[in-house]
Amino acid sequence: MKNKIATAKLERQIIKSMKSFLEKEDFFEIFPPKIVRASGACENIDTLFEVGVEGNLHWFNPKNPHRVYLSQTAQLYLEAFTPYLEKIYSIGPSFRAEAGDDNRHLTEFTLLEIEFSGKFKKLLKYIEGTIYSAVKDILLLSEKERKAMNIEKKDIERLKKISIPFPAITYNEAVEILDIPFGDDISPEDEQKLTQEFDNQPLFITHFPNPLVDFGKEIEVEKFFNMMPDPEDKKKILSCDLILPFGGEAVGAAQRVHDPKELKWRLNNSKMFKRLQEKGGKLSDFNWYFQKMEEKSIPHSGCGFGVGRILEFIKGKDDIRKVITFPLNQASII
Amino acid sequence: MKNKIATAKLERQIIKSMKSFLEKEDFFEIFPPKIVRASGACENIDTLFEVGVEGNLHWFNPKNPHRVYLSQTAQLYLEAFTPYLEKIYSIGPSFRAEAGDDNRHLTEFTLLEIEFSGKFKKLLKYIEGTIYSAVKDILLLSEKERKAMNIEKKDIERLKKISIPFPAITYNEAVEILDIPFGDDISPEDEQKLTQEFDNQPLFITHFPNPLVDFGKEIEVEKFFNMMPDPEDKKKILSCDLILPFGGEAVGAAQRVHDPKELKWRLNNSKMFKRLQEKGGKLSDFNWYFQKMEEKSIPHSGCGFGVGRILEFIKGKDDIRKVITFPLNQASII
Repeated sequence: MKNKIATAKLERQIIKSMKSFLEKEDFFEIFPPKIVRASGACENIDTLFEVGVEGNLHWFNPKNPHRVYLSQTAQLYLEAFTPYLEKIYSIGPSFRAEAGDDNRHLTEFTLLEIEFSGKFKKLLKYIEGTIYSAVKDILLLSEKERKAMNIEKKDIERLKKISIPFPAITYNEAVEILDIPFGDDISPEDEQKLTQEFDNQPLFITHFPNPLVDFGKEIEVEKFFNMMPDPEDKKKILSCDLILPFGGEAVGAAQRVHDPKELKWRLNNSKMFKRLQEKGGKLSDFNWYFQKMEEKSIPHSGCGFGVGRILEFIKGKDDIRKVITFPLNQASII
Repeated sequence: MKNKIATAKLERQIIKSMKSFLEKEDFFEIFPPKIVRASGACENIDTLFEVGVEGNLHWFNPKNPHRVYLSQTAQLYLEAFTPYLEKIYSIGPSFRAEAGDDNRHLTEFTLLEIEFSGKFKKLLKYIEGTIYSAVKDILLLSEKERKAMNIEKKDIERLKKISIPFPAITYNEAVEILDIPFGDDISPEDEQKLTQEFDNQPLFITHFPNPLVDFGKEIEVEKFFNMMPDPEDKKKILSCDLILPFGGEAVGAAQRVHDPKELKWRLNNSKMFKRLQEKGGKLSDFNWYFQKMEEKSIPHSGCGFGVGRILEFIKGKDDIRKVITFPLNQASII
């Protein structure tokens, strides 16, 4: 248990730092549901867990039975509160049916999510502030405390060099630096190459290409349905990933579309929704969200912080199983 | 959304108070798993949710596939840390497949759980302290803040009268007062009668009868398998419930058996485990826990606080659907 205790101490430390930064910035904690309709799905539809009772996967809503899933993201629930509480966050498990037993994927991990009434530039500032305050708080620990968390001197030296503002490049710039074809995903190996190019600092990659556009008109939504197209270039979206040394993609973020009509169009015409339908998902799975957006909706943005990947960055490890207290994957449920 | 915002504000307030009390008492937060083997089951086995992927309920551990469930309690995971961190807590969703749509049951609710190295008397003090600090903090709010949480004057007047120590009676005394047969469960209606008998204060009911005893020897374990029999009367267990006006049973607590051999005997001979086996549960579901108890185990105790029922008490409402932000039951998944 000795290693596990050190791990638990660092995990708690980082989560405390991040929450305390957000609380100081007046973010308000809510407690969103974990058993959800498809409205709790992220882009990665294929990894939805289903929930049943006595073998029955249609136990909920007996009058009109439907499938339910384990939440991958609380985003849509948080979004509904932005017109009233301005800045919201939640922290809890995110569930992904990722097969196998490897250094990057878990079936369950702690996800800290924020949403606020504001735009893309402010979003980058909140992400930077949250990560930077976690690093700064580590540097304020006593040597005894660091030892109790198994943090090594070389990692302290490395973390001392982290500075703000974090470098930021566009997706277009990233593929140019990496010399990979436009449109390709950036692999975990390439992510690490990029952070090395930028002095081993956390690195924002922004403005991912998104919509399928024909004669200037968007015809299909490729990414998560409510990411906001860039008003200056509608082939891009106002999204960003934060790439960390060791941890890789630790934060996924975007400004959200907030016009309810456009939201419905985008969901209906998204690749994500087509895959959802194959799984039994329906437009009505999103009723609660659409209803809230129709009641009141304002420009808003948000993101999710993968706590495990931030811990990899702090500890200088590239195996997520080594940095969290309960690393759970397909092979290791306890 | 106006009511929902007020509800979210009070929910956040109460959770903050309780956590802040525990942090001041040096409790350490951990983040236990939610997809679990039967080791995440509470007494109420029949309400376990199962987790699957693409209709397959045996997706986990492909070499030796087994069922997995949604956690009802993090208790066993917390217990494993008591020899090293002394005082532990966690907060997160507890899942129960309770059918229907009524004022007392949800399929998912926020559960705050604590475990610490210590005995029964200390346990009652921590429970009392946690609940009392939540009440006191409400009384410290400004009128504006209370208004924003929809707390009425009559409830403030009622909460002003809450005092410590909370009254405590044994199960035997409770059935005598209620004039119900020994061995019966105490119904929600009878719980409310009891709190009225005790000046509408939170009320501890302690020392529930438990083991089936034959010629002075325990032959079957009726309640949760690791509740500690009272050394002074082995027909009783060192357990207690805290009954709140309006909310009813809001906390379930016990000192735990910590001897690994006795734990195995008790699980093997428990009614709970027989029902688990019918559901496909195995002794090996508890391997992680038994292994940790064998590595190191000390006298320890703990409990779970049902946040929704505490909110009913604060608000003076007897419908759990009215006091939490996301009231989810079989009929209302969003």
